[in-house]
Amino acid sequence: MPVNLPEINPASIHSIDGIRLGWAESNIKHKNRKDLLVIEIAQGSSVSGVFTQNRFCAAPVTLCKKHLAAVKNNDITGINALVINTGNANAGTGEKGMVDAIATCETLAKIMAIPAESILPFSTGVILEHLPMDKLLAGLPHAVDNLTENNWVDAASAIMTTDVAPKAFSTQVSIDKELINITGISKGAGMIHPNMATMLGYVATDANIPQAFLDEITKEITDLSFNCISVDGDTSTNDSFIVIATGKSTAPALTNRNSKGFSEFYNGLLETAQYLAKAIIRDGEGATKFITVNVKGALTIDEAKTIGFSIGKSPLVKTAMFASDPNLGRVLAAIGYASRECKSLENLDTNTLELYFGDVLVAEKGGRAASYNEDDGQAIMNAAEIDITVELHRGNEEATIWTCDFSYDYVKINAEYRT
Amino acid sequence: MPVNLPEINPASIHSIDGIRLGWAESNIKHKNRKDLLVIEIAQGSSVSGVFTQNRFCAAPVTLCKKHLAAVKNNDITGINALVINTGNANAGTGEKGMVDAIATCETLAKIMAIPAESILPFSTGVILEHLPMDKLLAGLPHAVDNLTENNWVDAASAIMTTDVAPKAFSTQVSIDKELINITGISKGAGMIHPNMATMLGYVATDANIPQAFLDEITKEITDLSFNCISVDGDTSTNDSFIVIATGKSTAPALTNRNSKGFSEFYNGLLETAQYLAKAIIRDGEGATKFITVNVKGALTIDEAKTIGFSIGKSPLVKTAMFASDPNLGRVLAAIGYASRECKSLENLDTNTLELYFGDVLVAEKGGRAASYNEDDGQAIMNAAEIDITVELHRGNEEATIWTCDFSYDYVKINAEYRT
Repeated sequence: MPVNLPEINPASIHSIDGIRLGWAESNIKHKNRKDLLVIEIAQGSSVSGVFTQNRFCAAPVTLCKKHLAAVKNNDITGINALVINTGNANAGTGEKGMVDAIATCETLAKIMAIPAESILPFSTGVILEHLPMDKLLAGLPHAVDNLTENNWVDAASAIMTTDVAPKAFSTQVSIDKELINITGISKGAGMIHPNMATMLGYVATDANIPQAFLDEITKEITDLSFNCISVDGDTSTNDSFIVIATGKSTAPALTNRNSKGFSEFYNGLLETAQYLAKAIIRDGEGATKFITVNVKGALTIDEAKTIGFSIGKSPLVKTAMFASDPNLGRVLAAIGYASRECKSLENLDTNTLELYFGDVLVAEKGGRAASYNEDDGQAIMNAAEIDITVELHRGNEEATIWTCDFSYDYVKINAEYRT
Repeated sequence: MPVNLPEINPASIHSIDGIRLGWAESNIKHKNRKDLLVIEIAQGSSVSGVFTQNRFCAAPVTLCKKHLAAVKNNDITGINALVINTGNANAGTGEKGMVDAIATCETLAKIMAIPAESILPFSTGVILEHLPMDKLLAGLPHAVDNLTENNWVDAASAIMTTDVAPKAFSTQVSIDKELINITGISKGAGMIHPNMATMLGYVATDANIPQAFLDEITKEITDLSFNCISVDGDTSTNDSFIVIATGKSTAPALTNRNSKGFSEFYNGLLETAQYLAKAIIRDGEGATKFITVNVKGALTIDEAKTIGFSIGKSPLVKTAMFASDPNLGRVLAAIGYASRECKSLENLDTNTLELYFGDVLVAEKGGRAASYNEDDGQAIMNAAEIDITVELHRGNEEATIWTCDFSYDYVKINAEYRT
């Protein structure tokens, strides 16, 4: 079961003016399961995207980038719809994969009477198998038929693969007493690692934000949320995070960082993205612990993130966490080899750093802290939420990453996924 | 059980003139178990070492480097002995760790009547706990008492931690009908990854090789053996590989690459180091499969090694291997994200590379090979030894790495290690 991931309260999820969502059961991999989602976006919206850096990126990712470029080049006026299927990733599918992704957009374009280039396609699921196009295309009219503004919770279910629970979050900010709504959904449970993972994230707001500024914010928010999580260090072929601003709110436009209310909005968007990113870790394959790694006092953010992920990816640390074992030695070893991936850490002085489990100082001066007794560490490890903090004392930069433990069930889920 | 690791045949392990080995049961972690080893080295031998790059390197590693430097600076005439304890790594032990390592050398020096600086100390086992010095020092006279030339097989047992089986290998080469003997032992099962791992390796030969040339060869051999293996991507604090050349053979000296018989000797030494490195993988924690990843046609060796380890470290690939699942999608995804750790791979063309399981072409042109049927892939996966080959078609460099699968038992062993 997910670690401290509360069930979605439908009343807490606000619809976004300018966004309608419709789903279908199209039997792509399983029967009687929502597996196709269409998101309709009102004319005049800004739409930004961040995508996987995997060289084997999926055909739909390539097509998304092309269609977003068409907006930038004014070949089309904007993005009008997203279409997402689960059960099959359409990745590692060669030329036919691209033909299928284009056909999906073209069929949906006819049904919705919009340009095919104004549609962003997404796929998630098994790699290297061709999409069952007949089933997928047959589902599209059903998804369009039930487009409504308040389908967000069903939409969160419609994009799940190995997820145990759907993931959705809403918040509101007000500027001059005018409300801005922010609502998002995400999916992902394994093959999670920056930059990015088998994760899909969609956040919409009715705020009014010009395209170029939304692009800038989206990149920043991604680096502070979805690019700070790891289940297993595997970066998938299909990861995508999309932010939509419909501009339907009556609040004043947010055109730059000095716009009135911008910082409140930014914090609301960041809270939403971080909630959705952390929800993926809470629902990590086989996870029994939610682990936060804070690294402080680094020379650069890269140093802090590298040490954070060195700890957060280590199978030895993660199996110790599964066992609620306060095995500080494995954490120190992971700090020690972080220099493999970040050259500036080659002169890291291990005698001046401090390691904390929760607020308990466990290691300093190159060894176990004199004040530490293992009962205190054990109490921290017994909890479902574990905080690890490394204070490097060599600079002013810091980073936080989120990860989960490594359990029998992780092996079970991934050894049996295709059977 | 280890994957295809034959039991040591004592008759196949040759002693090395100039080397004597003695062990003791000193109850460092377990009772009635060999856990202390002394290796005596004849005057006039060359001794070379390669050590972990972990910033939290253990006190004995720091002391080894210091003593080897003393030889280089002619402060002492050479290395006369090695002392190795298992059960406790003396790592993350701060200042007291160094005091203990020095005391170990000083006590042994008195017993053997040699300088303390001529002794290299090694420790392996639990991190962050202080060595039980009374037990260790009490064991030293017993180890010295039973020094003999033919203790190699017992020595292989005396350095084990979570290893299931001892690891030893011998070979011979002849130059002008004069024999050169090469014999080595290694230990390690988890926390295995370059550069290097919780592994110890000791190889001795009676060949006559000057110190500087032995240093050069040792580094090369390490890069082609112990630095090509990964169990879990964790690099330990204590890894060390030592090569000793006693010069007692009547074969002509090997002073440079053009020396008569050098290439035969080099191949024998490489065979020994690779056997011992692969034996560690065969005995990898929870391993049920031995996996060889060949990467060919790369622009640089770094590209080839990075892709090899990207596949060999992926928990998704390793759990699929455990399940005998020919899941080529996960292998392709791991190739695709290798650019995270090797910038030149950012322009890798995934449409021109080929992927083979055994000799079966499984993927080309960015997707599944048209000729591939899954029964052929399944037959390859069902075996205990699996070869994966990636042909990049972008250059002439190549690398081979060795790894194992990821099983329930890996989690079990590492979740329960301290209990």
